[in-house]
Amino acid sequence: MSLGIGVIGAGTVGGGVIQTLLTQKNAIARKTSAQLELVHIADTLPERFKEFALGPNVRTSTDATALIEDPNVAVMCELIGGLQPAKRFIAQALRAGKHVVTANKMLLAHSGPELCQIAQEHGVELRYEAAVAGGIPIIKALREGLAANNIQRVYGILNGTCNYILSRMTYDGLDFADALRQAQELGFAETPPDLDIEGHDTAHKCQIIASLCYSTEIALDDIYVEGITRVSHADVAYADELGYLIKLLAVVREAGDAIEARVHPTLVPKQHLLASVRHEFNAVYVKGDVTDATLYYGRGAGRMPTAGAVVADLVDIARRGTGSAPAPFVYGPKRPIRDMGHIEGAYYLRLTTQDQPGVLGKVCTALGNHRVSIAWCIQKGEIANGAVHVILMTHETVESAVQSALSEIDQMDFIVEPTHVLRVLQE
Amino acid sequence: MSLGIGVIGAGTVGGGVIQTLLTQKNAIARKTSAQLELVHIADTLPERFKEFALGPNVRTSTDATALIEDPNVAVMCELIGGLQPAKRFIAQALRAGKHVVTANKMLLAHSGPELCQIAQEHGVELRYEAAVAGGIPIIKALREGLAANNIQRVYGILNGTCNYILSRMTYDGLDFADALRQAQELGFAETPPDLDIEGHDTAHKCQIIASLCYSTEIALDDIYVEGITRVSHADVAYADELGYLIKLLAVVREAGDAIEARVHPTLVPKQHLLASVRHEFNAVYVKGDVTDATLYYGRGAGRMPTAGAVVADLVDIARRGTGSAPAPFVYGPKRPIRDMGHIEGAYYLRLTTQDQPGVLGKVCTALGNHRVSIAWCIQKGEIANGAVHVILMTHETVESAVQSALSEIDQMDFIVEPTHVLRVLQE
Repeated sequence: MSLGIGVIGAGTVGGGVIQTLLTQKNAIARKTSAQLELVHIADTLPERFKEFALGPNVRTSTDATALIEDPNVAVMCELIGGLQPAKRFIAQALRAGKHVVTANKMLLAHSGPELCQIAQEHGVELRYEAAVAGGIPIIKALREGLAANNIQRVYGILNGTCNYILSRMTYDGLDFADALRQAQELGFAETPPDLDIEGHDTAHKCQIIASLCYSTEIALDDIYVEGITRVSHADVAYADELGYLIKLLAVVREAGDAIEARVHPTLVPKQHLLASVRHEFNAVYVKGDVTDATLYYGRGAGRMPTAGAVVADLVDIARRGTGSAPAPFVYGPKRPIRDMGHIEGAYYLRLTTQDQPGVLGKVCTALGNHRVSIAWCIQKGEIANGAVHVILMTHETVESAVQSALSEIDQMDFIVEPTHVLRVLQE
Repeated sequence: MSLGIGVIGAGTVGGGVIQTLLTQKNAIARKTSAQLELVHIADTLPERFKEFALGPNVRTSTDATALIEDPNVAVMCELIGGLQPAKRFIAQALRAGKHVVTANKMLLAHSGPELCQIAQEHGVELRYEAAVAGGIPIIKALREGLAANNIQRVYGILNGTCNYILSRMTYDGLDFADALRQAQELGFAETPPDLDIEGHDTAHKCQIIASLCYSTEIALDDIYVEGITRVSHADVAYADELGYLIKLLAVVREAGDAIEARVHPTLVPKQHLLASVRHEFNAVYVKGDVTDATLYYGRGAGRMPTAGAVVADLVDIARRGTGSAPAPFVYGPKRPIRDMGHIEGAYYLRLTTQDQPGVLGKVCTALGNHRVSIAWCIQKGEIANGAVHVILMTHETVESAVQSALSEIDQMDFIVEPTHVLRVLQE
């Protein structure tokens, strides 16, 4: 029996889904027994319909409601993005008893649990493999493949633009501005690029992963977010000298009753597999108590990889037939998000100071007073106007101690600019 | 509604499954709504039953047939391994209308399609996530996550023993025999280790992956298998100099109508993600026409990672309820396996020759006569008794040309021992 599919949004990803459904239909049916039948497309720009060789059985509408009300549509793919009207359309479709597949990470990060709740009440599925890490089947791995595990931690490189920029800075010596410009020229970065480079896109995916791993609602506002705009070429070079690469990571960890969910540039040891993830690729490292470490790598964005993830969700829905939805994945009680002051780890500190006697002594004394112990120290020659960089790596410590020490240090009269702090990946 | 589970074989992996079912039952139910109820264990060694804190509702038998006939058992986990009696038990259980979950790669490589056929005829599932790459959910990724793709190629590091040995040879300068001994001391390698180091274990997994990717029966005997016993420390060092690491790979590729399925040590460029997969870890690199490259990494063996994969299969079965099995994945028509003479790629040749004038000229002329073109050449100082190593890397060529040229070259009077040929990873 075939599954009637409606697609709202025939742009980049929606177009990829339409194209895949039209061209791969028979190959997919042959392999998986899933009969995916595109029956309806809705887009506010009707000229988009002409891009596809649609048969006479595919309806087109400029109005999503017509698609939602179409009795031939059993599953709606929401590929318009953004918060509204996407949320309204999804809620309407779920209430009309239709399954929904979406790639809308922003909406899920804001309203995922609410929409899952509606789906459950109406006995239908809300699926979103494409929303996190594009072509990498990470939602499936976390929900199904690792179902036996209590997930201890997840580290994700989830934004291709940021990883591309940091890779160019690392491997080609570019500074941030040049790397960003090249990312924009290659079409990896949006204009304006803030959602990417300020870390918010990664935070959306961090929220989805944390909610899924711990079956709990996580408020997007509770996630600490720091982008990559302050990472300088000097930081990349010093990290390299210390044996690290800098990556923007989503970090999700279980810490007793609390959960850590945060996004920040992070020093990753060069021998760690995440350090080998270059350019626009994404990867997710997961550690579970049963399976131990696994890693998933691939293209996190782009028309076809994202479309492939949407189609995989459609195949899953089709393969189990049009009967009832499977037993739901359930949101449990809320769990507290650990305050950043309480997180633990090692820290990289780049101080910019005047080159004068006694600097290192005063800095290290202040850190010692807060019980922050130093593992490494590099002082470099003059950078400009008599200022020098002093790079310190701490032993494992608690973040509040580092922040308290720095609030003292950054007041010292030889400090030229605020100290740049980067966190180091914990195993 | 709960799913009654029977486990035959309470050894390493079976014990891990039993332990996981006993301890994680509530956590799994909370997250996934799957109610996994261990109801029966069978093992020929009854003393094993005492290792577990079994409640009064868990039956134990020394006879698998009693378990298969137990009406409370809805799914049988086959974890005894080997060809028989495992095959008979699985066929019995499927015919009795029970789903089967197995980790038995050897049996699947020999009888997978036959057993899948029986499962399909009886409306039940035969699942085997644990059979390939242990804790890595690669079967799920290939069947479901990448369902929209035509799979173009798969490169797998699928045997932890071989990868451990090659890693120790690469990073610690050990020779093959010492690395093997250490693998055995650490419990990675079986005694005797032939199934691992001769490549047969990898070939079993290669067969399963190739059958799955191309929905076709692949005869195990049609898979070319070359192990790692001839890889010397010198090969590892020369490869390093050329920018490569040596990995034992399962290679599955689509080549027109034919399929390539082969296992051999392979030169992998250092910047390729597979080169970063060290020690006993496994990884699978997959390239599909929609999703492009993805990679999956984790522990390929071991009690708990393998048990986790078995339990994930159980969760999937439980979540869709005890109604009908989902639409099957179908085996299509047989497709030819490409003969090794017809495969294409670059080749590494290690010649051991007497150090005399004219050697390189004669060797290169013979290669040229067979249209094999040289990309790199290194000649090294004397190794012993006036012999030297000459290392050649060819441009892309067809394997039969290399083999024809070598059958001439190895007859030349200055050649001290047969030339060692290694294939180079193609992108």
